Amino acid sequence: MTDRPEPSALAYVPFVSVDNMMRLVNATGVEDFLRGLAGYIEADFLRWPEFDKTPRVASHSKDGVIELMPTADAENYGFKYVNGHPANMRQGYQTVTAFGVLSSVANGYPILLSEMTVLTALRTAATSALVAKYLAPKDAQVMAMIGNGAQCEFQAMAFRALCGINRLRLYDIDPAATEKAMRNLTAQGFEVVACDSGMQAVEGAQIITTCTADKQYATVLTDNMVGAGVHINAIGGDCPGKTELHRDILTRAEIFVEYPPQTRVEGEIQQLDPDHAVTELWQVMRGEVAGRSTPSQITLFDSVGFAIEDFSALRFVADRVAGTGFSQPLDLLADPDDPRDLFGMLGRAV
Amino acid sequence: MTDRPEPSALAYVPFVSVDNMMRLVNATGVEDFLRGLAGYIEADFLRWPEFDKTPRVASHSKDGVIELMPTADAENYGFKYVNGHPANMRQGYQTVTAFGVLSSVANGYPILLSEMTVLTALRTAATSALVAKYLAPKDAQVMAMIGNGAQCEFQAMAFRALCGINRLRLYDIDPAATEKAMRNLTAQGFEVVACDSGMQAVEGAQIITTCTADKQYATVLTDNMVGAGVHINAIGGDCPGKTELHRDILTRAEIFVEYPPQTRVEGEIQQLDPDHAVTELWQVMRGEVAGRSTPSQITLFDSVGFAIEDFSALRFVADRVAGTGFSQPLDLLADPDDPRDLFGMLGRAV
Repeated sequence: MTDRPEPSALAYVPFVSVDNMMRLVNATGVEDFLRGLAGYIEADFLRWPEFDKTPRVASHSKDGVIELMPTADAENYGFKYVNGHPANMRQGYQTVTAFGVLSSVANGYPILLSEMTVLTALRTAATSALVAKYLAPKDAQVMAMIGNGAQCEFQAMAFRALCGINRLRLYDIDPAATEKAMRNLTAQGFEVVACDSGMQAVEGAQIITTCTADKQYATVLTDNMVGAGVHINAIGGDCPGKTELHRDILTRAEIFVEYPPQTRVEGEIQQLDPDHAVTELWQVMRGEVAGRSTPSQITLFDSVGFAIEDFSALRFVADRVAGTGFSQPLDLLADPDDPRDLFGMLGRAV
Repeated sequence: MTDRPEPSALAYVPFVSVDNMMRLVNATGVEDFLRGLAGYIEADFLRWPEFDKTPRVASHSKDGVIELMPTADAENYGFKYVNGHPANMRQGYQTVTAFGVLSSVANGYPILLSEMTVLTALRTAATSALVAKYLAPKDAQVMAMIGNGAQCEFQAMAFRALCGINRLRLYDIDPAATEKAMRNLTAQGFEVVACDSGMQAVEGAQIITTCTADKQYATVLTDNMVGAGVHINAIGGDCPGKTELHRDILTRAEIFVEYPPQTRVEGEIQQLDPDHAVTELWQVMRGEVAGRSTPSQITLFDSVGFAIEDFSALRFVADRVAGTGFSQPLDLLADPDDPRDLFGMLGRAV
């Protein structure tokens, strides 16, 4: 303890720790949280042209990638820091960790710093289910989930919360991952079948979610596994050199994307010609272009995750934690009495 | 308080608050801190080709700019968030605030989160003085400082710590700014003269530092103010549409820059043709190209601030705070027992 004056209110930024994020999600209820979050994401998709957009800024290394994902509207600026390191899991680390900041465009001051490892899992799932609401067959009841890692249960919860899906068919090359997901999802009241192959998992499913982590050109789905009328929610292909679907599926499907300049580099469509036709989801949501137009169509959400979804998630959390105990003040910003006298502030701190 | 288990060590990131940064700087001594910091910056300039470099990612609005500045070597990744809002000062806010993160390239996990408002002021000054060590006339004793805002005293301290400059001539369009700087710098033992104009300030100075904040094509220095043999340390022109020097000075000077793709957009040289010859400072420091080659030459450091300087600053702070009380653990990263079981961690937090 010192005699120095406490920093002023301007110096503090509300911080949502992992512990507080979990408390907030649990206090809200996971499905209610996902519905609320999807509402913010949808609202931002509906005003898509208002955003300052850029593909994320990636720094690749042999073991993975670290990315910054900024975006802004007229009022707020947001960015997320996120890594992707597929080998981390074997060393006891998360494949993906993240945090983010929401700021005021008017003065550049941060107004929220938040953990985003848990929040990214939730926003990715909320986005998938929101998109499926527009694209999946209306009578969908069964979802196949190939890849049962950290994202799997969040996807399941979001598809139940937004699309009413309660029947799941799981497959992972590692049976321990499927066992973990079975345990968690059964406890949540899902009707779950563990499958021995991807082929078995997709039987009778109207929605197929692929969510695997290996950084390679993989073929989690081959062409013969995908029947007419299916909606594919392809999460795992999200990085140059990392795809999940056989190219032949892409040429049969109607492809929907978040932000084409980013998806063409990172998504499944990196396998296609750069001018292959894709549809932007915000236009579907605004009713400007068609989503699913026939029952037999194969729709594909080539999900890579875009900065606006994180911006929506930060807005949602900022609104939810305001006036609650789910954040703590962090002394992140210098605030001298005279804003020009930063040096004097330092001297007075002796 | 809850009965939930504490997060594991992997969940915590050391955080250096503004208060701890000020304690660290004061415990080290400002000039020793600046010398240590300049040593890290110089070491990183000397291995410049090893870095992953990109111009900063700027989001401009009518009131200012918010920027992300990432870079990486084989071991570490670093980025800084920084804003620049010239009108902030009039509303009691800092023109520039900043924070940054240093991470492990191997697994993407952050290893330091630090305030960087104070640290940016120090690294900008340390870089200026380090560059002047290579470019200023060897017998320089007097520095003119035009613009006496938040950066002014840090520049003065760095030029004394690294170049032995103890005589200063100050001018600002706002006399209150000069008064503030006079008070702080006199207390630090400098020989200071307050001047009524820029013209008066540059009289007899071998080094001219310009550090003004207005976002416009300004002419803080006109051509007739700059005599032979002077070194110009131009700090304030660092953004498209924001310059300080008359174009004629640029065509007479030998121009030295940090990273040409960024400086050509943001620096004084945005006034020149895109192929106007400039020299990269890392090559001067490595002795690969000449710095000052004649006593009568006008040398100009067209400073805009590059990500590698922030990376050096984060490395320096990380090394300095390791094992001390100058950081606090922040629960920023999710760390489930089973890294694939993020959802289970959430459930167990109920």
